[in-house]
Amino acid sequence: MITPQVAVAMDWGGTWIRTAVINRQGDILWQAREPNPQNGTKEQYLAHAEQLLATAIEHAGGPVAGIGAAVAGPVEPTTGTFYQPPNLKVLDGVSFNALWEDKFSLPVWVGNDANLAAMGEFYFGAGKQSAEQGQPVKSLFYVTVSTGVGGGAVDNGRLFLGANGLTAEIGHTIVNPSGDALNCECGSRGCLETAASGTSIARIAKIRLAASEFPDSVLAGLEPDNVDSEAVFDAAQRHDPLAVSILDGVVSALAIGLTNVVHLFNPDMIVLGGGVTVGLVKLDLLTAIKNQILGRAMSELHKEFQLTSAALGDSVGLVGAAALVWQQLDKAQE
Amino acid sequence: MITPQVAVAMDWGGTWIRTAVINRQGDILWQAREPNPQNGTKEQYLAHAEQLLATAIEHAGGPVAGIGAAVAGPVEPTTGTFYQPPNLKVLDGVSFNALWEDKFSLPVWVGNDANLAAMGEFYFGAGKQSAEQGQPVKSLFYVTVSTGVGGGAVDNGRLFLGANGLTAEIGHTIVNPSGDALNCECGSRGCLETAASGTSIARIAKIRLAASEFPDSVLAGLEPDNVDSEAVFDAAQRHDPLAVSILDGVVSALAIGLTNVVHLFNPDMIVLGGGVTVGLVKLDLLTAIKNQILGRAMSELHKEFQLTSAALGDSVGLVGAAALVWQQLDKAQE
Repeated sequence: MITPQVAVAMDWGGTWIRTAVINRQGDILWQAREPNPQNGTKEQYLAHAEQLLATAIEHAGGPVAGIGAAVAGPVEPTTGTFYQPPNLKVLDGVSFNALWEDKFSLPVWVGNDANLAAMGEFYFGAGKQSAEQGQPVKSLFYVTVSTGVGGGAVDNGRLFLGANGLTAEIGHTIVNPSGDALNCECGSRGCLETAASGTSIARIAKIRLAASEFPDSVLAGLEPDNVDSEAVFDAAQRHDPLAVSILDGVVSALAIGLTNVVHLFNPDMIVLGGGVTVGLVKLDLLTAIKNQILGRAMSELHKEFQLTSAALGDSVGLVGAAALVWQQLDKAQE
Repeated sequence: MITPQVAVAMDWGGTWIRTAVINRQGDILWQAREPNPQNGTKEQYLAHAEQLLATAIEHAGGPVAGIGAAVAGPVEPTTGTFYQPPNLKVLDGVSFNALWEDKFSLPVWVGNDANLAAMGEFYFGAGKQSAEQGQPVKSLFYVTVSTGVGGGAVDNGRLFLGANGLTAEIGHTIVNPSGDALNCECGSRGCLETAASGTSIARIAKIRLAASEFPDSVLAGLEPDNVDSEAVFDAAQRHDPLAVSILDGVVSALAIGLTNVVHLFNPDMIVLGGGVTVGLVKLDLLTAIKNQILGRAMSELHKEFQLTSAALGDSVGLVGAAALVWQQLDKAQE
C-alpha cells in the first residue's frame, strides 16, 4: 500500500487550537485557527477539537497518512495521555491516541509542543537548512524562550523522551543555586526560567527599578505596567544601562543552561525560538551566548555545534506534529 | 545461524587493561587483568591489547558473538575512533572497530567507559534488579563519582550518544556559577567535578584548613599529604564538624547536578557509582541527595525515579561492554 502523502496536524495551546494539512516536505497546504471554548467543559473542548480535525481531514482532499498533535503540557508518549497540563486543566488524564484513532480510523501520535517544535526544526526548519548546506544535523536541542522556557531534544531523528516524555525541561534547570535566587513558578528557586523568560525579564526590571539602580534609566520613567520584556529590549537597543545590564544577565543565564546541555546532550545544533529570542537576535546577543558556552565547553568536540534562531515561526508546533507522523510511519516501515 | 552465547569484553583504562568472556546473562566466565606497557608506544599498546583479546577469544571455548570494549576517554560511536583520551594519549586517533574487525573477523563495538557502565547497570546491575522486582527501568542515568565525575545515559535500552558520543558529562555541568567557584581541570569553573570528586573533596578540605575554619577538626591534625577524601569520610563518620560541612557541600552539589539531569533526561533510575559514592552510602547520604532533588523537581512525574548505588563493582566496564555487544546484535535482528 502506498502511504498517503499528507498528514493532519494539530497544535493545541492554552488559548488557540490550530489545525493544518501538511505534506511530506513540511509544506502547510491548508490551515485554520480557532480559540478554545470559553470556560468549556472537557466534553466541549474535545468535541470542538474533533470537529476541527474532521474539517482538516476534509480539506486533505484525499487519503490522510495520520494525525499528529502538539499539546501544551506533559504527555505520555505511547498512549498520548495528557498529564496535568497547566493551561488546559480540563483535559487532565485524557488519552488522545485511543480516542481519535477510534473516531477517525487513522493512526494518531501526540507529543508535547516543545518536543514537537524540536522535531519541526530538525526535519523542516534549521536542521533542514543546515542539511541543504551540506551539514546534516545529528542531534538537535531546541529551546523556546518565551513567556516560559521549555525545550525538546531530537537525537538521530528521534525524539528523546526519557521515562515519561518529560525531557529537555531546560527552563527548570538551576542556573543560580545561591541564596538570593528568585523563586520559580515550579516551586524551586534559581531555575533558568526565573532568569531568562519574558515574564522574568519584566520581573527583574521591576525589582531592579525598586532598588533604585540606574535612576536615569528610561525604564524608571515608565508606568510599572509598561515595564515588560519588550520595553527592556527597546531600551537596550538605545543602550540604556539598566536594560543592557538586565540582558547581560539573560545572556549569562542562557549560556550556563546551554553549557550544561552541551555537556549532557552533545548536540551539533542548538535552536532558540520564542519571543525573547527574537529580541536577542535583534541585539546580536546569540553570538555572546555562543562565546560564553565555548569558553566553558570541556573539549573541542563539544564546541562543534551551531547555535541558531528558529527557522519556523508560529507554525513550528503544527509542522513538528506532521514531522512526528512522517518519522513514526518511516520507522514502522524500516 | 544461531548467535554464539559468549562475548569478549575489554575495559581499557589509564593504568590497567582488563579482558573477559561474558555470557548473555552478564556472568563473567573468565577474566584477566594486566598493566599497560610502561611508557609504551602506540604500537606496543595495540599489540598488547590484541594479544589479550586473542587470549580471551581462546578462553571462550567456542564461537564468540563479538567484541565489546570500554575505553577511558571520548570515542566516536560508529568507527570506535578514540579522541584525545587524557589517560591514554598515545592512542589518540586510533579507530578500533576497523582494526580489530580485520584482525579477529568478529564484529566490534567500542564505547566510552562511563557510557558502557550505564549499559552494564541497565542490563545486568541495578536496572536488572529493579526489573526482577517488577519495576522495569525505561531510562537510566549513571554517574561515577570517583577521582573525576563522569556519566552515561541509557534510554529504552540504547545508549544516548548525541552528535559525537560525548554525552552525559555531568562532571562538567555548572553547579556554582558565582565568582568564587573553583577552577576545573577542563578549563572552566564551578563544574560539578570541582565540588564532588574525590580529588576535589581533598582540595576543598585543604582550602578550608588553610582558612583555619574549624581549628579543632581532626583533619587539622593530619599531615597535609594525608588529607584525602577517605580521611574526610572517616572524620565525618565521627561527626567532625569540618568534614560534615565538606560533605554537606558534596551532597548539595550532586543534588543540583542531578536535579538538572532529572529535568533534562527524565530518568526513572539514577545510579551512582565510584569510590566517593561508597563513602556517601556508608554515611547514608544518598537519601539526603534524593530529598534535595525531590524538593526541586518541577512535577510529580519528574519525582518518579529511583536513586541507588551501583550494583556492579569494578567489573562494570567489562559487563557494560558485553551488554553493548548483546544490545547491538539484538538490534540488528529486530
